This record gives sequence, C-alpha cells and structure tokens, in this order.
Amino acid sequence: MPEASRMEQNTFTPIETIGRKALISKIASRFERHGEGLVFGIGDDAAVLDTNRQGHPLLSSEIYSEGVDFDLTYTPLQHLGFKTVSMAISDICAMNGTPEFILINLSLTNKISVEMVELFYDGVKRACDQYGVQLAGGDLAAAQSAMSVSVMVYGSAKQTVYRSGANAGDAICITGDLGGASCGLMILLREKLHFDSSEETVLDPDLTPFEYVVRRQLVPEARVDCIKSFETAEIVPTSMSDITKGLSTTLNEMMVASGTGCKIFEAALPVSPDTRHAADELEKDIDTFLLYGGEDAELIFTLPEEDVKKFSDLFKDFVVVGKVEAKSHGIKMQTAEGHLMTLT
Amino acid sequence: MPEASRMEQNTFTPIETIGRKALISKIASRFERHGEGLVFGIGDDAAVLDTNRQGHPLLSSEIYSEGVDFDLTYTPLQHLGFKTVSMAISDICAMNGTPEFILINLSLTNKISVEMVELFYDGVKRACDQYGVQLAGGDLAAAQSAMSVSVMVYGSAKQTVYRSGANAGDAICITGDLGGASCGLMILLREKLHFDSSEETVLDPDLTPFEYVVRRQLVPEARVDCIKSFETAEIVPTSMSDITKGLSTTLNEMMVASGTGCKIFEAALPVSPDTRHAADELEKDIDTFLLYGGEDAELIFTLPEEDVKKFSDLFKDFVVVGKVEAKSHGIKMQTAEGHLMTLT
Repeated sequence: MPEASRMEQNTFTPIETIGRKALISKIASRFERHGEGLVFGIGDDAAVLDTNRQGHPLLSSEIYSEGVDFDLTYTPLQHLGFKTVSMAISDICAMNGTPEFILINLSLTNKISVEMVELFYDGVKRACDQYGVQLAGGDLAAAQSAMSVSVMVYGSAKQTVYRSGANAGDAICITGDLGGASCGLMILLREKLHFDSSEETVLDPDLTPFEYVVRRQLVPEARVDCIKSFETAEIVPTSMSDITKGLSTTLNEMMVASGTGCKIFEAALPVSPDTRHAADELEKDIDTFLLYGGEDAELIFTLPEEDVKKFSDLFKDFVVVGKVEAKSHGIKMQTAEGHLMTLT
Repeated sequence: MPEASRMEQNTFTPIETIGRKALISKIASRFERHGEGLVFGIGDDAAVLDTNRQGHPLLSSEIYSEGVDFDLTYTPLQHLGFKTVSMAISDICAMNGTPEFILINLSLTNKISVEMVELFYDGVKRACDQYGVQLAGGDLAAAQSAMSVSVMVYGSAKQTVYRSGANAGDAICITGDLGGASCGLMILLREKLHFDSSEETVLDPDLTPFEYVVRRQLVPEARVDCIKSFETAEIVPTSMSDITKGLSTTLNEMMVASGTGCKIFEAALPVSPDTRHAADELEKDIDTFLLYGGEDAELIFTLPEEDVKKFSDLFKDFVVVGKVEAKSHGIKMQTAEGHLMTLT
C-alpha cells in the first residue's frame, strides 16, 4: 500500500509487533550506507569516515524532550525530524562549518507507532537531502513516558569562527528575521489551550493566517546558505553564533566572550510583517519576541565594515543591526524612541 | 564545605535554584577546554578538533532511558556516568578504534538535584581519565518524568575492523568473561523486589557476596587495553564486535555479515566463578547468562590461527571459544554433553 494511503487510514503498528531490529532495518533502508566521505554508515558498531579529512572537525549535539521542548499534540513527527536536524546543524553553521554527518538517538514510548517513527525519519531524510548531510548512525531505546530526540552532528570548517572574535568597530549582522519561532509557539499553545477546553476531538485549527510563524516554529531551516556564501565571498566573520537562545542572550554571550560591548538599534531588528501581525493578534509586544524569543535558526555575526558591502553583493538575506563597541560601553540597544537600554 | 561532607548531609539543591547556565558552568569547570587534539571544548556552539587528523574518524552514539535501561533506586549516579561512557566507548573499541572525545546529552527530571548531576559527572570524569578521552560538549534539557542519557563518541582507527571480515578457519576469541552484567542486574532486581515488599525505608542490601556481578552491571569497563595490545602486537583481527547485546546475537550478526558459519564450544565460554555462584543463588541456568545476557562490555574477535599464539604472548585476558566455519555449517554451539545446537 502506498505510504500516503496507509497513513490516511491511521494505521498504528506498535513497535513491539515488529521489534527493534526490524525497525532499525526500516530506518536504515532510507539512508545510504556509503556516501561522500562516508566509508560505512548504519550497520556496525560505529560509523566510519574517510581518512585524511580537511579542516577542523566540529562536533555538536542537542537534545529535545517531549512535553518540554516539543508537544506531539501539535508537532507532526515529520516536522520534528526536520526541526531537530536543522537545529543541530545550525550549531555547525554557527562555527562557520559545513555539516556532514548526523547521528540520532531516539527514546520511544509505546504511544509511538512504527508509522510515526517512519514519519520522523521522512523529516530527517528531507533535512539530510536539503542540507547535504548523511545519517551515519544512532540508537533506539524504549522510554517510559516521554519521547526524547538527541541529534549529534559532525561537520568541518576550513576557518573556524568563535563567539569570541568580535572587534570594536565591526558591524553586527543578522540573517533572516527574528521572533517568528517563539511567536509561532505561542499561537500553537493558544490553539492547544482552546482545544483542551473544548469538546472537539481532533486538534485541527485554521492556522492559515499564522502560517509563517507556525512554520518558523515547526520547520526552521539552518542557514547553510549563508555559510556557503561566506566561502564564495572569501569572507570570514570575526565572530558568530546562532540565535536559537534568543537575541539578547546570544549577543551577551558573544560580547562577553569577545571582551567588547555593543550598540544595536531596535528599529534595525529584522522582523517579518507576518510575525508582527501574529504578535498583534496575541496582544503581545513584538520586542519580547525579537529580543527574548528563542529557536530562530538564524545567524548573528560580526564583520569589519569593509566586508559588509562585499558580502551584501553576494548574499542578500541579512541586515546590519548595530556596531561592536569597547567593553566599557556595555551591551546596549537604542530603542525606537531614542532611549539606551542595557540588554541582559 | 568539602564535597564528601556535603553529600553526607544529603543536600538537595533543585536545579532551578541555580539555573541551567550555572549548572553547565559547574560541569564545564571539571573538564579542560583545550586538550590533546582538542582546540576548543565546552563553551561555544560546537567543539573544535585539530586539523589533519590521522586514521578513519569513527562516530557512535548510545542512549539510556531511566526506568528502562537504568533504575535510579539501585544505580548510583556516579556509576551511571561511568557506565554510559564505558558502553559508548566500547563501540569504538569494537571497530579497533581509539576513543578520543565524547559529548553527553542529559534530560533531567526535577527529582535530579545539582549534587546528583555533579555525581554523574564525577563518574564521567573518572571514565574520561581512565580511557584517556575528553568531554568536548553536550546538551542539557529538562525532562517531564524520566531521565535520559545520550553519549556520543568520536574516535579514530588506523585500521578499521568490521563485523564482516571473518574467514573460515579463523579462531573466535572473547575477552574477559561473560554473563556477569546480566546476572548482576538480576541480583539488583531481586533486592529491589524484596525492598518494595518490605517495610524498609532505604535500599541498602548486603551485596558483598555478589560484588563481582553487581560491579559488572553497574561499572563495566571498556576493553581499551585489548585494542592497545592489538596495536602493539601489530595484529588486526579479521572481524570484531563488542558483546553488549549478548553472545548469541552478536555471533549471529558477525557470522551473517561475514557470510560464514561457526562452531563454538560451551565448555570454552569464559565465566567467572563469582558469576557461576550468583547464577546458582538465583537458581538460574548459567548458560542463559552466557549466551543471552547483555551489557558485558567485552570484545569478540576473529584471528587467523597463527595470530592467536602471537597475541596471547602479549595480552592474556582472552580465550578461544571456537572456530569460523563455512556458511553451510550454520551457527552452532557444541554443548558440554556433546550435542550441536544452533544459536539464534
């Protein structure tokens, strides 16, 4: 039976009916065992990479817990697969690296069917194809009451960029736009709350007006495109991080690590009209999402002024939001009204 | 206050009182940020390794779920830290690799205190020191109701050994002894059952007679020593795996991957007198533990006959348990009584 129609019938095959070994085979069959740089993937005690690799190997890992970091009532499994890969890959981008291989550890409750695991790996596969990475391994375990997803990424960087290299005078740049992911989460939580207090049996709200922010929450995309453009333009940012912890926290981490201060401009912060609309709908201050909202898989980086023009000729999806200053200046934002506030 | 006396007072500091960031700082302070081959460890978006590394990079990861893979009522946190690192490293050994770096993802319930997390990392640190590996990163998340531990390992191998290289005529060798870990688990479960049905308030049984098997369950050691001896002896096994899934399953995986059969001898299987004693005490057949018991972090490997003598001159802690045969022979064990049984 084709995948789609089988899913339509909401088939629920408990994992115990096929067993762990068969489930691993099902997963492995979607991914190549051998690939570029990969001598041997899923199927032995460890994955084996090519010898004599170029650049600095980079390692990073992230964990997502059900009921804390994601909620299966409004998170389709294929989106969860895509998102967890994106977020892990975002950390490699943040070091100016190219992601190459991922490993995924899942712990699964008995609420999770074989079909749901397959949907999860559909999302993982889509992310792998989009980012040019390969699934090289992982582990499966049973979980008592909540699912967890751990993603480990291996990447490499010709020129590693840390949070710590910003210099006074550098421009502070941000890709894409901010606040969407956290705003999308609030929309989803509002719908869930509404559903919980209603008589409806299926959570299926009309989210069309909020499509953008919900997509930012559920299927964020890592900025591999920006890193590729740095390489093409032969530009190396002086410092960089991703903004998954929120702008204010991230900016503080970078400036403290760099031993600098900064001044950014509220009016310059990139925001989508869709996010603004959703914030209005929620009757929330847009700045809360822009400064403190997490999970935006965007990059923040610092560039010497002369590189900004050069880079913008090649890569369009970023804006300058302010400037690195001496440490004594503090970590400040000039509000739209002209006041200086300290970001903490 | 010194660590020991603070623990004696059973201080319980909820993680929320110090926060995630401070907890990560506490963990990071126990580990070096820079080390052999490690340009930058904990503290940026990803760990950065040296360029121009030798050999094949190896990647592996494992997950442990509370209530399924471990039980905190009888598993001290420091042992859990040590064990999860050992088991992950065992997978790198199984490829003839040297473990170098680990990343650990934890999801923590509110039952877990700051002190418990510190104990966990005491165990991790002890394992790192013992095996010569470095903690290079990881992630922390909250968990609703059960803790999980994911360990990712990076290692490297000059000559990778797969499960698939066994040749008819090769000797089948096993390090250490078998069945101890699973037997230890049954002892612990028996004590827990006894405790649950008693009026006692603290689980503190006298496990002295079962010290060996309990240690095999709680603090298994990866056979890095065997891999080092292979290198010194300039011997490369034709195939290898670790026996954490139990002998019968592992042997089947190796023989199927190699396209061979085998014959092993029940009487040759390595077993400690302590394990035999514990099995007797449990009124269980020792063979069940030897063939199907999991979690023994021992290695099984195949060697051409001429290498067996050469290797045994250097490394003592292994025995020959049988021989690789043609595929048509099947995967067989000759029992102590002289019968041939198929292992499945």
